[in-house]
Amino acid sequence: MTARSETFKTEEGLQKAVDICEIFNIDIVVAIGGDGTARGAKSLSEKNIPVIVIPATIDNDIAATEYALGYDTALNTALQAIDKLRDTASSHERCSVVEVMGRHSGYIALSVGVASGAEVILVPEEEFDFDDDIVLTLIKDRNAGKRHYIVVMAEGVGLASDMAKKIEERTGIESRSTQLGYLQRGGAPSFRDRWISSLMGVRAVQTINEGRYNRMIVHRDGDCGDVDLAEALASAKRPLDESLEMANLITI
Amino acid sequence: MTARSETFKTEEGLQKAVDICEIFNIDIVVAIGGDGTARGAKSLSEKNIPVIVIPATIDNDIAATEYALGYDTALNTALQAIDKLRDTASSHERCSVVEVMGRHSGYIALSVGVASGAEVILVPEEEFDFDDDIVLTLIKDRNAGKRHYIVVMAEGVGLASDMAKKIEERTGIESRSTQLGYLQRGGAPSFRDRWISSLMGVRAVQTINEGRYNRMIVHRDGDCGDVDLAEALASAKRPLDESLEMANLITI
Amino acid sequence: MTARSETFKTEEGLQKAVDICEIFNIDIVVAIGGDGTARGAKSLSEKNIPVIVIPATIDNDIAATEYALGYDTALNTALQAIDKLRDTASSHERCSVVEVMGRHSGYIALSVGVASGAEVILVPEEEFDFDDDIVLTLIKDRNAGKRHYIVVMAEGVGLASDMAKKIEERTGIESRSTQLGYLQRGGAPSFRDRWISSLMGVRAVQTINEGRYNRMIVHRDGDCGDVDLAEALASAKRPLDESLEMANLITI
Amino acid sequence: MTARSETFKTEEGLQKAVDICEIFNIDIVVAIGGDGTARGAKSLSEKNIPVIVIPATIDNDIAATEYALGYDTALNTALQAIDKLRDTASSHERCSVVEVMGRHSGYIALSVGVASGAEVILVPEEEFDFDDDIVLTLIKDRNAGKRHYIVVMAEGVGLASDMAKKIEERTGIESRSTQLGYLQRGGAPSFRDRWISSLMGVRAVQTINEGRYNRMIVHRDGDCGDVDLAEALASAKRPLDESLEMANLITI
Repeated sequence: MTARSETFKTEEGLQKAVDICEIFNIDIVVAIGGDGTARGAKSLSEKNIPVIVIPATIDNDIAATEYALGYDTALNTALQAIDKLRDTASSHERCSVVEVMGRHSGYIALSVGVASGAEVILVPEEEFDFDDDIVLTLIKDRNAGKRHYIVVMAEGVGLASDMAKKIEERTGIESRSTQLGYLQRGGAPSFRDRWISSLMGVRAVQTINEGRYNRMIVHRDGDCGDVDLAEALASAKRPLDESLEMANLITI
Repeated sequence: MTARSETFKTEEGLQKAVDICEIFNIDIVVAIGGDGTARGAKSLSEKNIPVIVIPATIDNDIAATEYALGYDTALNTALQAIDKLRDTASSHERCSVVEVMGRHSGYIALSVGVASGAEVILVPEEEFDFDDDIVLTLIKDRNAGKRHYIVVMAEGVGLASDMAKKIEERTGIESRSTQLGYLQRGGAPSFRDRWISSLMGVRAVQTINEGRYNRMIVHRDGDCGDVDLAEALASAKRPLDESLEMANLITI
Repeated sequence: MTARSETFKTEEGLQKAVDICEIFNIDIVVAIGGDGTARGAKSLSEKNIPVIVIPATIDNDIAATEYALGYDTALNTALQAIDKLRDTASSHERCSVVEVMGRHSGYIALSVGVASGAEVILVPEEEFDFDDDIVLTLIKDRNAGKRHYIVVMAEGVGLASDMAKKIEERTGIESRSTQLGYLQRGGAPSFRDRWISSLMGVRAVQTINEGRYNRMIVHRDGDCGDVDLAEALASAKRPLDESLEMANLITI
Repeated sequence: MTARSETFKTEEGLQKAVDICEIFNIDIVVAIGGDGTARGAKSLSEKNIPVIVIPATIDNDIAATEYALGYDTALNTALQAIDKLRDTASSHERCSVVEVMGRHSGYIALSVGVASGAEVILVPEEEFDFDDDIVLTLIKDRNAGKRHYIVVMAEGVGLASDMAKKIEERTGIESRSTQLGYLQRGGAPSFRDRWISSLMGVRAVQTINEGRYNRMIVHRDGDCGDVDLAEALASAKRPLDESLEMANLITI
C-alpha cells in the first residue's frame, strides 16, 4: 500500500487486495499512512481482513491522534530552511515569504511560524485581510525597528511568489519568495519520528497479540494507545483552535 | 545565571544576587537551566526573591518534568552523527562504538540507541557483563548475517576508545570509536525545543500573572503545567525504568 | 560597504565615502562583494583611496576570477535541498521542478543540475524549446524506465510553479515546484569558502605589504593571485561555454 | 574492488582477478580508491588487464593529484562538528580537543583547523613541544581575552581524551575531548565531490576512447588530466609543506 491508488477505491481493486492476502496467507495487514490509507484499511477490514493502522502524514491532520509520523521531520526541515532565510537578513531590509505544505491544513505553517518567530502566519482555516493582517503588521514592525520580516503561509492560501509581489507593491519593502514544496517530505527522519514509530510499532504488536484488530494506533497526552478504526475515522479532521490561540499568545 | 557558579552556593554569593535584584528593581527571576540552576533559584526564593524555573538540560534527568529543553536537539545531533557511521558500513565488516553524553544518566544513550537501531546500548544505571551482553550479542548478530554493528554507550560507562579496543581483541571484529563529547550541546535548536520553549514561556507568564511564584514549569503527558519548586526538587532523579523496558522490547 | 547603495553611485555619495576615509584615517579599503562592490571600489580608487577587492558573489559571474566567495556554500545548500526531493521519489511517479538563483547567470543551475543528476537543466544563457528539450526528454526518460524526474531551472528562465503546471499538462506526469529563493544565501559557510577566503585574505595582506594597490584578488587554476582592478572590471561577464559543454557530456 | 583485500596482494589472488576479467569479458578496469587500490590496479595492468585509476581517499595524500574524491565531504563533516563545539562556548571558559582522521597525514587536521579558526593544530608530520606549542599558546590566548579554545589534532598524534586531560592538568582550563572517528567517512557527498567526480568520470571515458591505458586521472591547477599510473605511484606521498606555511600565516 505504498502508493496512493485509485484502483483501491473500486470494488474490483479491493477484491484484488483481499485475494492477495489469501494467496500469500496474510493474516493481518498493518497499514502505515494518512487518511486515505486508513480508509483503505477500513474497507479491507470490512472484507474480513484484520487491520492495524499506524498514522503517518506530515499534515498531522488525523483527528484521533495528536501525532502522526513524519510531522516532526517535516517541521525540522522547514525550520532549517527558514533559519537560512534569517541568515541573510543582516544588511538589507527585506521580507521573506515562505510557502510551506498544507492545502487544507495550517498545522505546518502555524508550527514553523511560531518556532521561527515569523512576523505573519497565514493558514487556510482562518480568513485574513491583506491590509489589516499583513500590511499593517509589517509597517508596525518596521516602525518598531525591525529590518527583516518572515511571512509563513500554507500552500492552501496561495502562491508565495504572488504574495511577495503584492507585499512589495503595497509596502515598498523588497520581498522575495521561497516555496519549499516537496522538499519537506524528504530528509532523514528526526529523533522524535524514530522514537514514536518505535513506540507505535511495539504497540501494534501488543494490540495484535492481545487479539484486538481493526484499531488505529494513536499518540495522545504523551503516550501511545489504540482506538477503534471506524470511530477514529468518524471524527472530523483535527481543528487548529488550540494551537491558533497559542500562536496568537506567542506572536502578539 | 548563565554560567555555573560556585560562588552562588555560598551565603555571600547568594546575598550578592539578592542585592543585585534590589538595585535593579528585579521583581521576579525566571531561571532557565538544570538541577543546579533550579537549586540556586530555590535559595533565592528563600531570600524572598520570587522565582520561576524553566527546566533545560540535555540530560533530561529532572524528575518533575518529562521534558527538559535542549534534550531533543541533543538527541537529533547524536542521531545524525550515528547515521554517518552507518553510511560507511557497506563494504567493510566493522563495529562502531559511540560514546554519548551522560555521566550519571543513560537517557541520551538509550534514546539514540533505540532510534538508531544500535546492536548494544550501555547505560550507567544498569550493570552489564562484557562477555554476555556485548561479545555474545555481536557474535550472534554476525551469525545472523549482520556486517555492521553499532554500540552506543553513555560516558559514565567508560571511554569509547577503550571499549573499541576490548571488543576488537575479543571478537576479532575491526572496531573504531567515536566520542561525541560537547558537540551534542551545539547546533541550532530543533523544532520541538523551540515549540516547547514557546509553550513554557507562555506558561511562565501566565503563572506570574496569576500570582503564583516559586514554581517550576513542567511538561507532562504532552502538556505544560507548573508545580511547586521545593516539591519538584524533593523528588529523586527521573529513573530509566520504563524507557529501559521499551528499549528491551524494541532491540530484542 | 555592507549594503548595496544607490547613493554610492552619485558624486555626493562617493565624496562622502572619501571624507569618511579621511576622518577615520583609513589608508586602504578592502572591499568584499560582487560586481557592484568592485565598481564602487574602483570609483573610490579614482579619488585616490587605495583599494583591494575580494570577489564574493554566489552568482560566481565575475570574469577575472574562477571562484568568488559564497559560491560553494550556495551550491551545497541547493544540492541538499534537491537531495530531499529525490528522497520522496520511491513510490510515486513525479516530476520535481526546482528554481534556483540566477537572474542572468546559469552557473548555479548548471552546477547543481549536474551534481544532482537532473534530467533537465535550464539556464538563461541558452534558449530552449519546451517540447523538444523538456517534454521529449521526460518522455524518453519515462520510456527508459525512470520514475522520478528533476528539472533544475535558473530564476531568469521563469517561475517554477508555472513550469510545473505546463509540464503536468503536456506530459500527464504529476509535477510539483520548489523555489529555493534566498535560502541559498544562508547557512554556515562551507569548508571551501572558508579555505579560499583564508587564502584570499593572506594574499590581500601580501599585496598591500608589497605596495600594490587597486587590485582584485582572484582564484585561477587552483591558486590565488591579484590582477589590476580596472582590467578585471573591463572584461565581460564570465560565459558558461566550457561548463555547458561539460554538462552536455555528463547528462547526455 | 570495493573492500580492501589482502588476498589481492598474493599471486593467487591477483590471478583470480585476471581470470574473472576474462570470464566476464572485462576489457578494462576503472578502479576508484586510494593508494592501496591504485597499487592493486597497477598489478592488474602488469597482467595485461588495462586499467584507469580514479583517486578517492579522504586523506588526500596521493602525490600525483592535488585532489582525491571524498576529501571535501570529510572536511565539511568535520567542520560542522567543530562549529557545534564553538556554539557551546558562550558562557563557560573551556578548551575543546577534537581528534580528526589521519594516522600518517595531517591534511584533514590542518585544513579544518584553519577553516575553524583553531587555536592549536597538531599534525603527525610536525613535531611539537607540549609546553611551548600548546600550553603557552593557550595561556597567551587567555591573556589576550579569549574564553574558548579549539585544539584540532590528527589521530596519528594521539588520543584526544589523553590530550584533554593533560591540558586541563597543566593549564587549569576545563578541557573536553571529541573524537570524530569514522563519522567523517559518512554523509552525503558535497557539491565539490560530485562535481569533480563528474569531471574525472568524463576524463576517464575520454582517456579510454583515445586508447591511453594504465593512467591515473588527476586534478591539478584546478583542472583534470591523466598521468602514467606507474609514475604516479613512484612519487612519494604528498607533503604538507606549502599548506603548513599557509596555516602558519593564517593562525599566527
